[in-house]
Amino acid sequence: MRWVHFTAAGHTAYGIIEGDRIAETRGDMFGVWERTGRVHALADVKIEVPLIPRTFYCAGLNYVQHLTEAANKRGEVPNIPERPEIGYRAQNALIAHDENVVIPRDATEKVHYEGELVVVIGKTAKNLTEANALDCVFGYTIGNDVSERTWQKNDRTFYRSKNTDTFKPMGPWIETEVKLDSLHTNVRLNGEIRTSFPTNHMLFSIARFLAATSRYCTFHPGDVMWMGTDGTSPDVKPGDVVEVEITGIGTLRNRFVKEA
Amino acid sequence: MRWVHFTAAGHTAYGIIEGDRIAETRGDMFGVWERTGRVHALADVKIEVPLIPRTFYCAGLNYVQHLTEAANKRGEVPNIPERPEIGYRAQNALIAHDENVVIPRDATEKVHYEGELVVVIGKTAKNLTEANALDCVFGYTIGNDVSERTWQKNDRTFYRSKNTDTFKPMGPWIETEVKLDSLHTNVRLNGEIRTSFPTNHMLFSIARFLAATSRYCTFHPGDVMWMGTDGTSPDVKPGDVVEVEITGIGTLRNRFVKEA
Repeated sequence: MRWVHFTAAGHTAYGIIEGDRIAETRGDMFGVWERTGRVHALADVKIEVPLIPRTFYCAGLNYVQHLTEAANKRGEVPNIPERPEIGYRAQNALIAHDENVVIPRDATEKVHYEGELVVVIGKTAKNLTEANALDCVFGYTIGNDVSERTWQKNDRTFYRSKNTDTFKPMGPWIETEVKLDSLHTNVRLNGEIRTSFPTNHMLFSIARFLAATSRYCTFHPGDVMWMGTDGTSPDVKPGDVVEVEITGIGTLRNRFVKEA
Repeated sequence: MRWVHFTAAGHTAYGIIEGDRIAETRGDMFGVWERTGRVHALADVKIEVPLIPRTFYCAGLNYVQHLTEAANKRGEVPNIPERPEIGYRAQNALIAHDENVVIPRDATEKVHYEGELVVVIGKTAKNLTEANALDCVFGYTIGNDVSERTWQKNDRTFYRSKNTDTFKPMGPWIETEVKLDSLHTNVRLNGEIRTSFPTNHMLFSIARFLAATSRYCTFHPGDVMWMGTDGTSPDVKPGDVVEVEITGIGTLRNRFVKEA
């Protein structure tokens, strides 16, 4: 099932995608809901951010190739984590599919994409085991963890390198039926595949991250966990269009523009 | 005006504190609201977390004495930030006034308090100047940035050192009428003052942090920014009660217990 958050004729709602149409719903996507009976053409609506997460978790370093290539670029030895330790991103930075990533005027040219699988939590959960961890997952969407590498390297925190407004495209929708091992991530820059990897070939699996984090932190419906990226990105320039496709989920597309 | 989030007879609402009573309200604290006409005795209600923030900002290193004393304890030279760079905490960790901080079984004895002033944002704002930054502030509450220092030192992220469930007491209420320069923070351990400092003697002022952050990040109603702490904390033991008083706002009190 594909859940989409959308606006049509000034009215914002959730709905279920059925072919090229959306069956509008009311109620709680994570609990009790029903169809309103209204149906919209998918092509006619504005797609919104799937949800504003309660806690916005992000696995920073979770694919070995990305770690190795990024370290090599910096002339450093890759620092591969020994255990799954989750990080965070900020809600202000989220934008929807087809909205613009706005590069600040004072950013350097080192603006990169990171195509990521996003886990959407649907149930309150703590002290999960790797065996039952995926039971709290509602579905999956796609994220682009846009990063300004000069700020990332030189600032004390990630507040502007990772969390500048528009630096966290997420969407286009949430897919609840996913076979993790069959997923493949393709990132296209202006239509050309530049990064491609099996999505589930992570250093620490989703189940392992959920179990380890939930030893200390309770998950709540609407939390999200971004799972990191593989490979490296070229510098993205104003006017470029980045598409993050994860097979079986969809394609998240955003144009990059320079702040006026 | 003091806004309190509370539960009485199974019903959770916002209200305005008037003496020893709460005038219950309905609507949006940040926008259009009205009194319901119901009144509760403050002593009879359960006080809830004032709000679950949208983005949970936190200034990590913002008082020179805290930086210096903490570095001295570690035998290091203090690393004093040259500019205001905001960090983050996680929503899962929030608890209310009078709820228990639960120290995980595997935590070391290095569990510390940090009494902090908390800014509650009331308006959407970007590109603030230091001169107009405080216009977006709705009010102020109190936070205790509980930290497990061994994890803070050894982990790659703050996920459990700072964001373990219950490690972020916040409250007891939001005070909208505050004279920043008149505030004084007193932290009491089992009734005895152990840390005391003028709240507004920050390395970077609230206005400066808001202006600098809002250059890149839009604030939204319900965002919070914790402003850091001064001084250092002794190791807090199970059974201890920590009270963070900020004069003119109130006192946030929480007992520390060990996970069963």
